[in-house]
Formats: sequence, C-alpha cells, structure tokens
Amino acid sequence: MAGSSYVIGIDFGTGSARAVLVDAADGRLAGHAQAAYPHGVMTGTLPGGEALPPDWALQDADDYLAVTRELLTSLGERARADRAEVLAVGLDFTASTPLPARADGAPLSRLHPGAPHAYVKLWKHHAAEPWAQRLNARGGDFLRYTGGMTSCEWLPAKAGQLASEAPALWAETERFIEAGDWMVWQLTGREVRSSCQAGYKAHHVTGEGYPEALEAEAPGLRARLAEPRPIGTAAGALGGDWLRETGLPGEPVVAVATVDAHAVVPAVGVARPGALVASLGTSACHLMVDPHCHCIPGVAGVVRDGILPGYWGYECGQAGFGDLLAWFVAAFAPDEPREQAFARFREAAAALAPGESGVLALDWWHGCRTPLMNPGLSGLFVGMTLETSPAALYRALLESLCLGTRRVIDTLTGGGLAVNALLLTSGLAERNPLLVRLMADITGRSVQVPEVTEATARGAAIHALAASGAVAGFDEAVARLGARSARSHEPDPAAVAVYDELYALYGELAGQFGDGRLMARLRALQPQRQPAGGGPPAPSPEGC
Amino acid sequence: MAGSSYVIGIDFGTGSARAVLVDAADGRLAGHAQAAYPHGVMTGTLPGGEALPPDWALQDADDYLAVTRELLTSLGERARADRAEVLAVGLDFTASTPLPARADGAPLSRLHPGAPHAYVKLWKHHAAEPWAQRLNARGGDFLRYTGGMTSCEWLPAKAGQLASEAPALWAETERFIEAGDWMVWQLTGREVRSSCQAGYKAHHVTGEGYPEALEAEAPGLRARLAEPRPIGTAAGALGGDWLRETGLPGEPVVAVATVDAHAVVPAVGVARPGALVASLGTSACHLMVDPHCHCIPGVAGVVRDGILPGYWGYECGQAGFGDLLAWFVAAFAPDEPREQAFARFREAAAALAPGESGVLALDWWHGCRTPLMNPGLSGLFVGMTLETSPAALYRALLESLCLGTRRVIDTLTGGGLAVNALLLTSGLAERNPLLVRLMADITGRSVQVPEVTEATARGAAIHALAASGAVAGFDEAVARLGARSARSHEPDPAAVAVYDELYALYGELAGQFGDGRLMARLRALQPQRQPAGGGPPAPSPEGC
Repeated sequence: MAGSSYVIGIDFGTGSARAVLVDAADGRLAGHAQAAYPHGVMTGTLPGGEALPPDWALQDADDYLAVTRELLTSLGERARADRAEVLAVGLDFTASTPLPARADGAPLSRLHPGAPHAYVKLWKHHAAEPWAQRLNARGGDFLRYTGGMTSCEWLPAKAGQLASEAPALWAETERFIEAGDWMVWQLTGREVRSSCQAGYKAHHVTGEGYPEALEAEAPGLRARLAEPRPIGTAAGALGGDWLRETGLPGEPVVAVATVDAHAVVPAVGVARPGALVASLGTSACHLMVDPHCHCIPGVAGVVRDGILPGYWGYECGQAGFGDLLAWFVAAFAPDEPREQAFARFREAAAALAPGESGVLALDWWHGCRTPLMNPGLSGLFVGMTLETSPAALYRALLESLCLGTRRVIDTLTGGGLAVNALLLTSGLAERNPLLVRLMADITGRSVQVPEVTEATARGAAIHALAASGAVAGFDEAVARLGARSARSHEPDPAAVAVYDELYALYGELAGQFGDGRLMARLRALQPQRQPAGGGPPAPSPEGC
Repeated sequence: MAGSSYVIGIDFGTGSARAVLVDAADGRLAGHAQAAYPHGVMTGTLPGGEALPPDWALQDADDYLAVTRELLTSLGERARADRAEVLAVGLDFTASTPLPARADGAPLSRLHPGAPHAYVKLWKHHAAEPWAQRLNARGGDFLRYTGGMTSCEWLPAKAGQLASEAPALWAETERFIEAGDWMVWQLTGREVRSSCQAGYKAHHVTGEGYPEALEAEAPGLRARLAEPRPIGTAAGALGGDWLRETGLPGEPVVAVATVDAHAVVPAVGVARPGALVASLGTSACHLMVDPHCHCIPGVAGVVRDGILPGYWGYECGQAGFGDLLAWFVAAFAPDEPREQAFARFREAAAALAPGESGVLALDWWHGCRTPLMNPGLSGLFVGMTLETSPAALYRALLESLCLGTRRVIDTLTGGGLAVNALLLTSGLAERNPLLVRLMADITGRSVQVPEVTEATARGAAIHALAASGAVAGFDEAVARLGARSARSHEPDPAAVAVYDELYALYGELAGQFGDGRLMARLRALQPQRQPAGGGPPAPSPEGC
C-alpha cells in the first residue's frame, strides 16, 4: 500500500459530522469516522441556560472545530497506517447555516456566550420567517433565479432577524458567513466563500454579485459577505496547526465548501448535464446541471457553479416526501413498531395493480415546492369508497409522490432542460422497491438507484480530489470516486398507460387547488394558527 | 287493566321482525317481541343449495308468515293476560322487496323452490342494475317525481330482471307485489297495495297510475300491480284463521302497509308539515310532508300519501352516513374493539374546536343521493398537513355528514318547502352527542332528538291506530302514541359563524366534483371494476 494517495470528505450534518477516507486512484473506502456535535442542536436553551424563543435552532461554531479535529485525527491515523498521503480535504455542510464573526474569524458566540443571536443559526431555525416575508413582499428582479421567493431558512432572512433584533451584535458582526465557508476559513486561514452556498442561499449571481435589495432588512449585509469562488477548486492549503494537531500525512489542500444535498450528485456518478438526481429523504431534492441558464418559474434555484463546476445548477424540490409516509404510518398504525408497519403497508400496497386503489392524492401535506412554491398548500385524497383499504390509501400516497416527481421533471423539461436519466438516491429508494417501481411506471422512464455508501461524504471527497490537482478535472474525479454500478428499473408499458391517465387527473386536481385559495381558507379557520401573514414556515428540506 | 285497548305494530326488517304491543289510549308499551327469518337473507345459495350469482339478495316469503305467527301469538298472550283487546295491526316493511305470486296469493317460490327468480328480491338485491340503467337511459316524464331516476333497488328494475332472465316464471307471475302488501293480503285475504310503496318504489302517481314506460323492461307489469290505497287506512279485518292460530283477543283490522323508514315520522311525533325528520343510520333518510306538490331536482321521492296521509311526502337521502364512520374506524383502528374505538375517536374529535381540524371532507364515499343523485361519486379529504391527527380526520368526516344534511335542507327550502324543525332519530343520534351538537352548529338550527323506543314498530302501531277508527284521525293517533319528549340542542353562534364558512367551502368542493367526471375517470382506472355502464350499484339505504 506504500505510496497510496487518499482524499478526505467530511459531511457536516444536522447533529453530527461523518467523514470518509478514500483512495484517490479508485475510490476504495479506506476509512470512515463519525462524531456528534457536543452541543447538538440548541432549540430550548443556550449552554449557559438562557432560554430560546420558539422556532429557534442554533449551533455552536466551536463544535465544528472540535469534531473536525477528532475526525481528521482518526482518519490521519488510518492513512499513516496505510503509508498513504492525504491529497485534499473537502467538506459539505447544511445550509443556510450562517454565523456572525469578527474579521479575524472569531465567532461572536465565543465573545458573547449568553447572546442567542451570537450563535450559528442552523438551516432549520425558522424564527426569521417575518424577514423572509418582508423581502418577498418587496420583491425584486433577483428572485427570478430562485423561483420568485426567498426562504426564511436562507441567509438574508437570518441576517435580517439578527440586524433587527440585536443591532449591537450586528454592528459587531464583521463577517456574516455560512458555517461551511467558515470551516474552510478555519482550516486554511483564508476566507473563501462557496459559489454553491452564495448562489443557493444568498441570491448571489455570477457577474452581478449579491442583490442590493437584501440590504433593506440587514443594512450593510453585502459588506459582511464576500465574492465566492467556484466549487471543485482549492481554497488553500490545510494550515500547519491542523497538520500538527491531527497528524494528517501529506500536504493536503482544502476544497471550497458545498451544500450537503448537492454533494450527492457527483457521488452517484453524475458529472454532466442530462441526468436528474432525485434525493428522496424526509423531503425530496431534485438536482441537475446544464451549460445554459434558464430561469424557470417554480425552480427554486438556478446557480452558476452551484452543483457541478462549470455548469448552471438547477434545484427543485418536493416539500414533503418520506415525512408523508411517516405521517401515514403513525396515523394508521400508531401502536405497531414503525418498521413492521411500513413493511406491512408496502407489501399490501405492492399487491394492488396500477389504478386499482381508485384513490388519487395531492402530495402537498407540507406544501408544494416545485413548481408552485407555496408552503401553505395542504394534502388531498379523493376517490374513497367504503371498499377503500388503508393499503389503497398508502399506495395512493406513494403514487402521489411519484406524480409530484413527474411534475418536477415536466417543469424542468418545459423550461428547456433535457432529462435523459433519472437517478434515485437515499435510504428510502434502497428500502422501498415499490417506490422505485412506481417511479419508473409513473414517470415512464428508466430509473437507476446507484450503489454507493456514505454518498454525501463521498461527494465531498470528490470535491477534494478535483481541488487537489491530481486529476485533469471534475469529470475525472467523479469517474474515479463516484458510483460505478446501479440497480435499474424499466417502466412497464401497461402500467405507464394507466399512470398517464392518472397523471392527467393529478394535473387537473393540481390546477383546481394550485391557487391555494380553498386551502388557505381552511387554514384560516384553524383557531390555533397565526393570523394571515404568520403562516407556516417555508418547506424545510435539510440543506436543500 | 280490564278493558284496555291495544294496537300492534310490526316492523319487518332485513334479518328479523320486531313487534310492539301498545296501549291505544296513551302509548304505553305493553309488550314487545322479535323473531328472525328462518332463512335470513340468501346471498350465496337457495335453501336447496342452488348457487346465486353475485349481487343477489333473496328472501323466502313463507318466512314472513312464520315470524308473524310467532309474534302475534306472543303479543296475543300478553294482551289476554292484560285482559285487553287488540284494535288493529299495522306493519312496515323494507322496500322495494317484491315477490312474484299467483292470483291466489301463492308465492312462486312455494311452487318452484329451485328457481332463484321465484323468490322475494330483497331491497338490497343489486343484480337488477342493468334494467335500472336502461329505464334511466330511456327516461320519461314519470321520473320527475323521483329526482330524475329510478334505482336498481326499486320494483320496476327487479321486474325487468325477472321478466328478462326468467320469462317462463314471468308468464306465471300473476301478481308482482311488495312483501309488505303481500303480508297485508295474507292477513286480510284482500290484496290492498300501499300508496307509500307504490309511489316511492314503483313510480305510481295519484291520478295518473303507474307509468307505461315501465312496461318496456317488463311487459305486462302494470297488469300485475294494483291501484294502491292511502296509508293510515284499514285494508280489512284480520282473517279468522289468524285469530284462531294466534289467539289475539278482539277483532283487529289490518292497516295498509308502509315503508319502514317512513314509519319513523309519526313515531317521533310529527303529524304536520314543517318538521324534517332525519333518520341517521347506515345511510341517512330525510323525510317531511307538505300540502303541496313541488318537484324538486335532487329530491328522490315526491309522493301523495307517501309518508303521512293527506300530504305529499318528500324523501331525501345521504347515500352513506353511519357506514362512513364504520369505514373510518375499521381503517384506523382495525385491531381495537369497535365500540371502544368509536368512543375514543368521538372523545378526541369532541376536543377539537370548529375549524381546528383544518380538514374538509366530501361525504360521498357511497355516492351522493340528494341533491346530485349520483351513486358513482366518491369521497374526498382535503387540508391534511403533517400535524393532522386521525381524530381531526374523524371530526372532518362527521362534519361532512352534517354539511351534507345542511345541503339537503337547502335543497328542500330552495324547492319551496319551509323547514321549521329538525328532528334526528336513530341509535347514532342517541349514542353520539358530538354528532347532535355538530348538526346544530352546522345547520345553524335547533335540533331535537325525540325520546322514543322501538320507533319503527311504534310507527306501524300508529298506522294501526289510525286505521282502527278509534281516533278522529292520524293526528290524534300520533298525539297518543308518538314521542312526547325530546332532548334539544341549540346552535352555538360562534361555531355557526365558522361552519357557515366551512359550508361555503363544502359547496365549492361539491361544485368542483359534482359533475362526477374526475371521480368517474378514477373509477374507470380500477381493473376490478366492471366496464363503463356496469358501474357501482345505486346507493342503498335500507327501505329508504
């Protein structure tokens, strides 16, 4: 093994970070490690006991340093045992997860540990909703790249809340920065921002910069940001202190950070336009790239160098996906062990033929992201008779998720993108063969489920390899480290014919309810809901 | 007790008959008895083992004689013990439940015990659907009194099936007669038909007779029927053989038969126009009377002397009611004892405020009877989020049933009828105080639940008393024997305001889906369904 070259990818998730050590020549997994953040997600109190209001979700930036030290030490040990050198470190992060820092990189939480606004605001911190609403109400041309809206989860709304509720801290904030970019800064000593995070979470546009409109809610915001660099490039060399502390062999460079959901794309083997990667988790995130810029209504993010370097990245989503199935099982089998209930419903639903359930659903339990961009929409079941079984409802729900994905595909192709391949990734796709079959039959497309483990961290490792200069380009990094095999499913023509009709009906239903008027009036009748304007938070796919 | 005068009411239900012995002076219940039909409902085979096709449901007319003998013997014993005489016997029956008989009254099943078509076709025999469809497709002016359609459950469709599938038996059929009328014939020796059964189940119109159009499917049908007599009158004296066999004291007359659902109206104390009686069972049947004839689109039956003598009777319905709640409990609590699950959902749903569920349903699981007259419609839930609980869905379902009742009321008032009082009857209303409260809050009306036991059989006893001549008229019979007390519920103005808005949304949804197009296309996708034209059977409220 002497002379091997490794790269490291670190996936900073919500509760912990996972890292992989990968052979740069062939993608072999040489080691992996995981470490939880000491303070986890703070939703109730700060470390000192100070209470947090509802909808807050904070993290402590120093936790990131601690787990990174632990992970690099562990993997460094492995690399030394293998007599390998480490060429590069890449990282992906949840986003938007920004923190206020001083010009020297010190997080304000280190200086003001009792001040909630001094901490990292995690992606799912939803208390900035009013600032997102004000930005959206004011509008502006910059929204054309994000489907016409900004989200309470994104950086501008979070900056707005900080500037408005803690003006003294805002004055002290010299840099307002995504945690992923901040980690790169800590590792290299250089503040290098990511084109992916800036584009998707702060409305940065290549050639145009950050929109001035953002300053309306957070005066001076743009001076606290920085022009980003393309993903897949090197931000700088890993600092000497880190090398000494962790014992990493070699002289690794550190890659520009990327968003966690986007790191999956190269990991499943996609390096080029034409392939749509659907990451099916609690929510669904659909990602693809194209050489050209198309602003498509309902597509939440169109960003240059946003997913793969050199291309425009397109991000769509279904606001609810696996969480709808979890809702169903919790409602219909409250006392049954969850996995057993899932297996039972899957089996019963799989025994039904296409159309046999007689039921059609709108998959909007958590709102509709693409193409309607309306978090206030809600779910629908139609077609029930006294013969309708819970399995029929479960199958209708699964089908509606696939019909929603087909609508995402149609939105992209209608906007000028060619979708030639559909790749599903996530545990859901691996565990639920019925879902994969339905996805093929309902989209009428061949579907692939790439075989890859630790996909997100592996994606970060691909970014590292591309940044290391040891390969000719990002393509080659993907070819070496990305998935090489996949289970594929072909659509059944008889089922496709039935589902074409069901999709037509889904489209009619979506047309009838898509303006959201009836659903909004139903919500308005709920006494526990906030008055109009408060509304539910925007859909919240983690890092998507 | 010497010198008391009693009347008897017999309620011929689907599986058994129940009889009451009532004091004619004050309505006191002096005795009651119940007896099951020896052959029950035959759906699989005849007594001799001959197999029946799907959707058949037969009975043996001789069973009615057997249980009548048993019931009258039992109550006669009681009357003699009380030294009372029996003034009259009244009976109500499921309908349309016709049988083929000879001119001497012999049911053909006694002559051809191996021939399925020789037996009584129970109300829920649904195999005559194609003949109903042909009659409806041909149409005709006579349909204006029944909301524009005839049902597969009614007499003409059943005659059509018999004439078409068993022409030799049809040729032998000298009388085609409702089982209720046949029982009156057997008891009195006189074939006297009921204005209620003829009007509601065979399209007879006072002054016009039976429509010629019915002959298209059953040639010679009208010659096998007979002009009816108004309900509430005497058909004749109870035959001497019956008196001897049963030992009934006195010289009772037998009243003209009535339909079971309609017998409830006088039993709850209604003798005049203005009161709507909603009988909430498996399905819901809404009944009222008026001095004038209004043909109202969507009102399934407008019949002179059809509910109370001297008035036009109006019958509306919700094709599904209690069966929707049973469906829900079976789906959401399959392993829990049914009554316990019902109680649990009732309690949880009662804890929600009006509008709090956020969910709205269309109560069409079994189609919509009034006002849409479309058995092919299906159910709908809209408004679900990941926070929606099963209790919220249960409450939405209950609310939809009450919204459907409000729509029935609006259909009647829109057609020119004044609805001044709303009376609920049935075990459902007695067991489910939440339903009663919702009915008041959703209709915005004071609601009464009359206190009465054995309501249907008691209604038959009221018909008997009116027919006996011992009272001045039907009004007095109702005053003596009908319910004298009721629990009443007033609407809560705050809830009414919320439900007015929910009703507006219900109306919008009903408008969107009421043409049945989308629901029919969903049904057409079901491989197990018959091809177009077959369709599901008409809604099937028992005897309603």
